[in-house]
This record gives sequence, C-alpha cells and structure tokens, in this order.
Amino acid sequence: MKTTEPSLTGLKNLKSRIKYIREKMDELKIDAYFIYYLPNVSYLTGFRGSSGFVIVTHNKSYFITDSRYEEESKKEIEEEFEILIHKGLTQTLKKARFMRYIKRIGFEKDWMPYGVYKNFEKELNKKFVPCEDIVRKIRIHKNDSEIEKIKKAQRINEKIFEEIIDIIKPDKVREIDLAAEIEYKIKKSGGEVPFPPIVATGSNSALPHAKPGKRIIKNNKPLKIDMGVKYKGFCSDMTRTIWIGKKPSQEFIKIYQIVLDAQNKAIESIKIGMEAKEVDGIARKHIEEKGYGKFFGHGLGHGIGIEVHELPALSPLSKDKIEEGMVFTIEPGIYLPNRFGVRIEDLVCIKNREKFVITKTTKNLIKI
Amino acid sequence: MKTTEPSLTGLKNLKSRIKYIREKMDELKIDAYFIYYLPNVSYLTGFRGSSGFVIVTHNKSYFITDSRYEEESKKEIEEEFEILIHKGLTQTLKKARFMRYIKRIGFEKDWMPYGVYKNFEKELNKKFVPCEDIVRKIRIHKNDSEIEKIKKAQRINEKIFEEIIDIIKPDKVREIDLAAEIEYKIKKSGGEVPFPPIVATGSNSALPHAKPGKRIIKNNKPLKIDMGVKYKGFCSDMTRTIWIGKKPSQEFIKIYQIVLDAQNKAIESIKIGMEAKEVDGIARKHIEEKGYGKFFGHGLGHGIGIEVHELPALSPLSKDKIEEGMVFTIEPGIYLPNRFGVRIEDLVCIKNREKFVITKTTKNLIKI
Repeated sequence: MKTTEPSLTGLKNLKSRIKYIREKMDELKIDAYFIYYLPNVSYLTGFRGSSGFVIVTHNKSYFITDSRYEEESKKEIEEEFEILIHKGLTQTLKKARFMRYIKRIGFEKDWMPYGVYKNFEKELNKKFVPCEDIVRKIRIHKNDSEIEKIKKAQRINEKIFEEIIDIIKPDKVREIDLAAEIEYKIKKSGGEVPFPPIVATGSNSALPHAKPGKRIIKNNKPLKIDMGVKYKGFCSDMTRTIWIGKKPSQEFIKIYQIVLDAQNKAIESIKIGMEAKEVDGIARKHIEEKGYGKFFGHGLGHGIGIEVHELPALSPLSKDKIEEGMVFTIEPGIYLPNRFGVRIEDLVCIKNREKFVITKTTKNLIKI
Repeated sequence: MKTTEPSLTGLKNLKSRIKYIREKMDELKIDAYFIYYLPNVSYLTGFRGSSGFVIVTHNKSYFITDSRYEEESKKEIEEEFEILIHKGLTQTLKKARFMRYIKRIGFEKDWMPYGVYKNFEKELNKKFVPCEDIVRKIRIHKNDSEIEKIKKAQRINEKIFEEIIDIIKPDKVREIDLAAEIEYKIKKSGGEVPFPPIVATGSNSALPHAKPGKRIIKNNKPLKIDMGVKYKGFCSDMTRTIWIGKKPSQEFIKIYQIVLDAQNKAIESIKIGMEAKEVDGIARKHIEEKGYGKFFGHGLGHGIGIEVHELPALSPLSKDKIEEGMVFTIEPGIYLPNRFGVRIEDLVCIKNREKFVITKTTKNLIKI
C-alpha cells in the first residue's frame, strides 16, 4: 500500500522529520536509510564535527562517529539518536545488533562514493539500495528556530560589513587584506566562515566569483563584497557593491539602479505558491529590457540553511515553487567584462505564508 | 603483455607522471582515465579553482572546467592539457570528439559518487571501470620544486607562530581569538589555511583534535598550537605545546620530555627503505616504556603535500615504506584525559636518499 505523500512544509521538528524519512523508507521498501552526507547528518543530529553518520531504522535512529568526537557527541547530539562510537565503521556495523534485522539499506546515491558503497555491500552482506537525498528536501523548509538562527547569522554579517566599510583606506589595502579582516571578525564573533568572502575591486568586480587577490583597493572604482556568517550551524549571505570615492561614474550609477530595480521588482513579486523560475524571470526581464540581459549570466538566487547553497533554486530552469519556511537569496547582477560589475544580494524568507526580507543593510549606494 | 611496474620514485615531472598513468591504463585495459578528485586534478594541472576534471587518454590529456574558470585556466593550467569549457559536463563529454574513440573509461572509485558514475555510464554510453586512485600514489613522491614549496609554506608557518607567541596575553585572549589571529596572518601573507588551527589551553590540550572555543588562555597552563599554511598549492603542518607562565609543573616537564625523546628517537631512526610502521613503533615503544602507552592513541605521522593528509601513513598498521621524495610529519603525543596533553610535530623529508627535518622552530620548552 502506497503511503500518501506527506507534506514537507509541515515538518517542523525532528520527530516529524524522522517520521517522514520512515514513510519514504516504506515507499522505497528499505529497512534502513544510511545518511552519509555530513551536512545532512549535522542537520538532523546537531553534530558539528568532521566525521559522523546516521542510520535510521523503523524502530530507532543511530548516530555513529569515532572516538575523537565521543565527548562532544554526548553534549551535541539530539536525544532521539543512540550514539555509537566506532573503531573502523565497517567493523562496528558488522557487529552492531540492530544490523541483524536489516536486509535492504538505502543510501544517498549522489554522495556515497562508488567504492564505499561496494565495500559496504560486500563486507556487511546487505543489499545497498541507491536512493535520492531525502534529507535535502526536508531541509528546504525551515522551522521558526532555524529562521531565527539565519537571522542572527545575518545580523552578525551586517555588523561586520559595517565595521569593514569603516576601515577601508583607499590606495592602502589589498583585496586579501579586507577579506582576511572579514574572516577574522567572523571568527572573533564566535561564528564560522561558510565561504571565502569575495572582495573584488575595479574590473575584478566583473567576475561573478572573483577570488580576492593582491590588487589594491583604489579610489574612483567600485568594490564588490559578498560575505556570509555561519552561526550555530546556519548560514547567512549578502552582497553589496559600493563606490570608493565621492563621485561614482554615471555609468556605474545607471547599472547600479538597474540591478537594484530588478532586485526590488523580484522581491515584491514573491508570493507563496509561485514558480521560482517566475521570480527569476521578473528580475531577468527588467535587466533585459534595459539592454543588459547578456551580462546577467547566473541564476537569481538559491536556498540557504545548513549549507550556503541549498534548495530551492531560483533560476530559469528551476522546477521549485515558493513555499512556507523557505529562506533564499535574491541576487541579480550585471557584469561588464574587463570593466566592472554590480551585484546586490538580500535574504528573503517565507513565514506564516508571508515573505519578509531578512537583510537590513541599506541598498542606497554606499560611497566612501 | 604486462608492462613492468614503473618506479614511482622516479616520476619527477608531469610528463613522466602522465606516462605512468598511461602504463596503468594499459594494465587496466582502459582507453581513458577520468580524474574526478579535485586535489588530484590540482596536483596534475596546477588548477586552483573549485571545480575541474581531467581525462587522460593514450594520446592526449584534457582539463575540463566551467565558464567561471575560463580565464584563470588559461593562465594556471599546464600546457600538456587541452582545456575544455563545459556547460553541463555530461553534455559536453557527449559531444567531445575524443570521446568517440573511448570504450572503457576508468574512474577513481573511492571518490566518484555512485549516482554520478551511474549517470555517466548511462548518458555517455561507455563502460565506466572502477579503479584505484592512481594519482594518490604518484603524489607520495615529491620532486625538488614541490619540496621547496612545502619548505616555503613551513617558513611562513614558523614566522607566524613566532608572531603569535609574542602577542599572547594570559587571562586576556580566548582560544578562538588566537586561532583567528593565526588565520588572519596566514591570509595576509598570501597563503591559504589548509586546516583550522588547533589552539587548546589547559585540559582542552588533552583532546588531540580540540576545536578552539571561548576558553580564556590562562597562566600556569599548557597551550597546544597545531597550525599549517598552504602556499602555492602545498601544505605545511607543525605542533608545539608551550607553557603559559614561568614555572611549568614538574609533571608537565616530565611528559614534555618523554614526547620529545620519543620524537627525536623516531626521527633519528628514519632510513630509506625502512617500514613506516617501524618508525611509529620506535616512538610508541619509548612512550610505552615510560608508562604512557595508552595515552598515545593516534598514529605517529602522515604524508603531506597538496593535501594536509596524504600517504604515507606512519602508524602501527601501515604497509608503507620510507622512500625517496616523501615528506611526512612526526608527531607523537601524550594526552591525559581532563588534565593536559603534549604533542610535538615536525616535518621530515627524504631527499637524495637522506632524511632531513624541514621544521626549524625550537623544541626547547617555550615559556611565556
């Protein structure tokens, strides 16, 4: 008998999330689901270490790590999980009592390496069944406490952005200096660095994913800063493009306004139930109409949570819809090769069926 | 006809390394070898971006990345490789002319996810053959230029360690403050942070892999610092355990001496052709004889290069031998739970059939 597809948006706590995994296990006719991908493990258990696994059976859920994390596990891991400390994962699973009752065990096929899968199947003498990533879909819908963590991560991000803006001395600091400052301040705040900040001056701002280099931040040039903070396991992400100097060029002002209008239009349009690609289309259409369509090469935004990039995708090819509990970026950009680029990125959240913008940093053009 | 096993220690340049891969391809009866694991790709090509692949055929070698890295690739990638820019890897491979001549394509089974492998096999209509990681073995043996890069990375590491020691103000800085300083200085130097530094004070030093926390660095306690620098793609790694205050406890002095003697004995013993586990055994035996055997739970050392942890393993179960061109750590430790721990870690290299210690930082007990 096929279970009715449970609603993903209603999975507000660990219990209901595990229940959802078990319903999926019924559908897939598997006795256990092996969660190998660390962000999925961290999401469910609260684990913050570098190596851990989860096995969900129909009766119980197990968290498995090695002796390095024995002490931390006892503090961090949700009560729901029985903790197993392994000395060699395969050996420990071979002996584990609960494994006796398992014949078919599902795994995340897009994360487990082929050799690991083959080795498990041989050593454990079980049928390993390649499955979709179930937890990735659960992660799309944040509960109130997760949204609060993302907000807090963004508040720290904004505070550090303001401090950084204050210390820019044109003609004195290099991109890597400013990037190092940002990371330093994140760590001093007790947060983690979810991705290396982008600090791109002059023509480097025309590279969407520029890596900070030794180029000096100069007067009368744009500066693109894309930065995020991870706090209590959840990430924030923001981009601002500012002008170094008092008098931005007319062209820069024009491009800035187009990007800003595209972003505002997209944000205004967002409604629950809307297609994500439609939101992308609204920003894209505005940029196209202004004649810069071919200079906006990436998607409009991405979901954010335990990882900086998660579902939903807001892009022309996305099949996602805007739903309750989603948190995602809206970040249109125009990149004029070898000249300059502008990107403006905010975080948007859907809560109680309403959208709201998490980001508070001004979008008026900052000149310093 | 089976080719004679080529000597790994003689592979001093890219040409000979590619030749070795092709000889392995003959043995494995494959027409191409797909290198999926990014550190292996970086090692062969010089690529520093976040997404790239290599395919070696019997005639040519291809480097494949996406449009984000088009410009960088032209500068970074070794001439040996033909650069392909993909918009969707599978689609690009489907159309690539060279793929027509390939029937059996090997891949690194311990790195490619099951789902990726299955998808390639289906979409490209080729036989994908699970293979060992060939490049990992090549990487064990560094050439002179690679050893120089590791030395340079360690020189930067030592300089930053000295600067850090100078700024420790007991009762004022937290572990995370010092860790943030270390990372900041690494980035300002133009280097990268290959692993989050360990800064562990008091009883935290008893955790081999302690994560820096908000604990304040206090007087009359040990402080364990484990840090590394990545420079031009190659890593360094060093641990020192120091004493905060003028008068270390008698017990600390005693444990420090045991660890230091164990390390020195192990380093002195190293000879080309020796079993790696034998080197481990020499340090381990010394610690056991002093009665602390059960407080030294990890292996004695690990190879280092493009990654912080590579082959060889210096541990009781290792099957590796000490060979020309190897660079590895020697890092015994004694960890007394809930009390304190001492680890001392140096880099050792085998060049021109002689061992030499790369690390120059003093091992006399530092008191501050």
